Amino acid sequence: MLITANNPTRRSWLKVEKESDFPIQNIPFGVFFTKDDIITIGTRIGEYAIDLGAFHQLGYFDGIPLTDDMFMQDSLNDFISDGRKTWRLVRNRIAEIFDEKNSSLRDNVKHKEIIIFDVNEVEMLLPINVGDYTDFYSSKEHATNVGVMFRGKENALMPNWLHMPIGYHGRSSSIIVSGTPIHRPYGQSLPKGETTPVFGPSKSLDMEVETAFITTDANNLGEPISIDEAGEYIFGMVLLNDWSARDIQKWEYVPLGPFLGKNFASTISPWIVTMDALEPFRCESPKQDLSPLTYLKQKTTNNSFDIKLKASIETQNGELTEICNTNFKYLYWTMEQQLAHHTINGCNVRSGDLMGSGTISGSEKNSYGSMLELSWGGKEAITLKDGTKRVFFNDGDNVILRGFCKNNEVSIGFGKCTGKILPPINL
Amino acid sequence: MLITANNPTRRSWLKVEKESDFPIQNIPFGVFFTKDDIITIGTRIGEYAIDLGAFHQLGYFDGIPLTDDMFMQDSLNDFISDGRKTWRLVRNRIAEIFDEKNSSLRDNVKHKEIIIFDVNEVEMLLPINVGDYTDFYSSKEHATNVGVMFRGKENALMPNWLHMPIGYHGRSSSIIVSGTPIHRPYGQSLPKGETTPVFGPSKSLDMEVETAFITTDANNLGEPISIDEAGEYIFGMVLLNDWSARDIQKWEYVPLGPFLGKNFASTISPWIVTMDALEPFRCESPKQDLSPLTYLKQKTTNNSFDIKLKASIETQNGELTEICNTNFKYLYWTMEQQLAHHTINGCNVRSGDLMGSGTISGSEKNSYGSMLELSWGGKEAITLKDGTKRVFFNDGDNVILRGFCKNNEVSIGFGKCTGKILPPINL
Repeated sequence: MLITANNPTRRSWLKVEKESDFPIQNIPFGVFFTKDDIITIGTRIGEYAIDLGAFHQLGYFDGIPLTDDMFMQDSLNDFISDGRKTWRLVRNRIAEIFDEKNSSLRDNVKHKEIIIFDVNEVEMLLPINVGDYTDFYSSKEHATNVGVMFRGKENALMPNWLHMPIGYHGRSSSIIVSGTPIHRPYGQSLPKGETTPVFGPSKSLDMEVETAFITTDANNLGEPISIDEAGEYIFGMVLLNDWSARDIQKWEYVPLGPFLGKNFASTISPWIVTMDALEPFRCESPKQDLSPLTYLKQKTTNNSFDIKLKASIETQNGELTEICNTNFKYLYWTMEQQLAHHTINGCNVRSGDLMGSGTISGSEKNSYGSMLELSWGGKEAITLKDGTKRVFFNDGDNVILRGFCKNNEVSIGFGKCTGKILPPINL
Repeated sequence: MLITANNPTRRSWLKVEKESDFPIQNIPFGVFFTKDDIITIGTRIGEYAIDLGAFHQLGYFDGIPLTDDMFMQDSLNDFISDGRKTWRLVRNRIAEIFDEKNSSLRDNVKHKEIIIFDVNEVEMLLPINVGDYTDFYSSKEHATNVGVMFRGKENALMPNWLHMPIGYHGRSSSIIVSGTPIHRPYGQSLPKGETTPVFGPSKSLDMEVETAFITTDANNLGEPISIDEAGEYIFGMVLLNDWSARDIQKWEYVPLGPFLGKNFASTISPWIVTMDALEPFRCESPKQDLSPLTYLKQKTTNNSFDIKLKASIETQNGELTEICNTNFKYLYWTMEQQLAHHTINGCNVRSGDLMGSGTISGSEKNSYGSMLELSWGGKEAITLKDGTKRVFFNDGDNVILRGFCKNNEVSIGFGKCTGKILPPINL
């Protein structure tokens, strides 16, 4: 099926600023409260949020096989379950209706009032009901950096790392949408040189700059997904800040992995950008050092995406300092490899499952995707624009991730993924 | 509120065999397909499955504040959300109606036909929609045994183990109900002495004899549950076989913990036995070697339950050999400590979350809860009644867990948690 929504020459009758993440070629999917407090599934063009529940009710999806209440839901899970053919029909139709040459909705003032909202008037909600959240660890630069700091240079990259996309299960309940503040978590940590742990608020609250992909129902329990088919089950991507309390994590993680150091909160951006919208930005993935086992071998090398990722700290006074400038394409393991690996033992994947990339670091210091790496384990403070220094985050810091793709014709972005750090609660 | 359902002298007008796990003092909760292919929530007395959807519709819960469709659902999550007061009202009422002296249902042939089924005529389903599955690692004997085998005697019990209930997140999607067969999983493993992994079906498929508790909605994100209140949020318990592919696990688990070695399947027993039903079997938990941090300190020492746990292998010819005889009370960390620890960082817990105990091993060799320990890493084969030997499981083995409590007055059990191992699928 032709993805007509991607036509780079198309323009919308809705105003889209030149630098917008949301031109008519993006058409992401999200869930929001309208100003009338109705929950609906929607999309976004420029600074406009579009109520797809109303859009559907008013007949603009006529001819596409969709249940009546498909978009009047509080999560995208059912829509995602409908599969790639439906996603494409829906996205193409939205592009068609909002095309500057199409007058059907453009000239219908009454319908426009019901369907189109100022994006600042709606409240974005978590777009999916996350059944399972998996976080991979697929940046070689990040795994090496952390390995050096936690285990020393000799044991930096574990022997298994080059053979499989290492991953672990995270917590679904504490996945929150961009804009939700988090409290600095409490926990146990082991002060340097001590043998007895202490209890208190984390002293090393960190971000992890990640993306995550969202799957559709992919397989029955017991049946692996082949690497050649894996891509068909990926609906789209979001930005992910996998908050980490390094002191808690360091003390707890052996031998079963991260737990309370991570599960207090993980923030995702509200708009799911479809893989179809990202397709024009497909690019080479890094050459893999070792030839992977057959079930992880891809037929082509064009398996990554050129997605620029940036992290900034906004301090209490409103000053913004960029602290990280990285790119999705640095990741060693691809999403198809992650999904094929995840299911090779028969593990079943469902609609709305979230799969994090792991922290995305590049080879340059300013491309490191965590404060742990940026401050090299707390040893090298970063100076912010307001003159204050950080090794990890302070209370009051607002951490902002951004992500976008850009070529000569069009730019497609994720918007922001933000979270402000509040002081620890009173126990 | 008096838990009248626990009255040990009560007898039911439904026949209950002397050795039954399900006397009228148990009243567990489950979900099943009736013979008419209707999904309902139910309970069990003796060999009878009781349709609580019909029971409610016919007025037997009158006076208890319950929504009309509370029991006509495919999971217990909403009922569990209603909280402990409702659980007790419902359980007490069921005990009252099925009491041998109560004629209201006993003498109503038409109602009995609608409500009561032979347990062999119904198909048990997964009783909960698991939002998040956490598995702890709270048996000191198990952690020590595995530590010795995986890391050597010196690093057996990690320094953090005595300070907190170590746990990690598992996979929700692959939790299955007793009786569901599993295929031997494929994966990577590293042959002894090699540096390059091989791919194939697991050669060391294992069980983990566990229990798991099920929570109700307990807290908002950011708000810990205090240890004194933790017990109020625990609805009940099930048996859990946390299937493990040891060769896959061993190669993958450093540094982020178990992943594909576990997430191909985890089997639970179908009937959730309430904490109220288990209350008469409360007992001392082991004295803890170190005084825990304040948030993990309990006011009393009576924090465990005397639950006998057994595992058997049924071979293809139908012969049954008991391979493990252990007890829940051996666990070092209590359920309240697990829940208080899990939420101390603000992690939110929801209705239907499943929290595994970790493998429950005692100090005697026949009380070890995994083949890994029973065969001491594959070195000491177990001889079964049919003369065959096992270090791990063979295809065709049916692994059966049982659990029950017993005192002079009454016995309360979980029934069976079974899973047959099928050969690997054709890739």
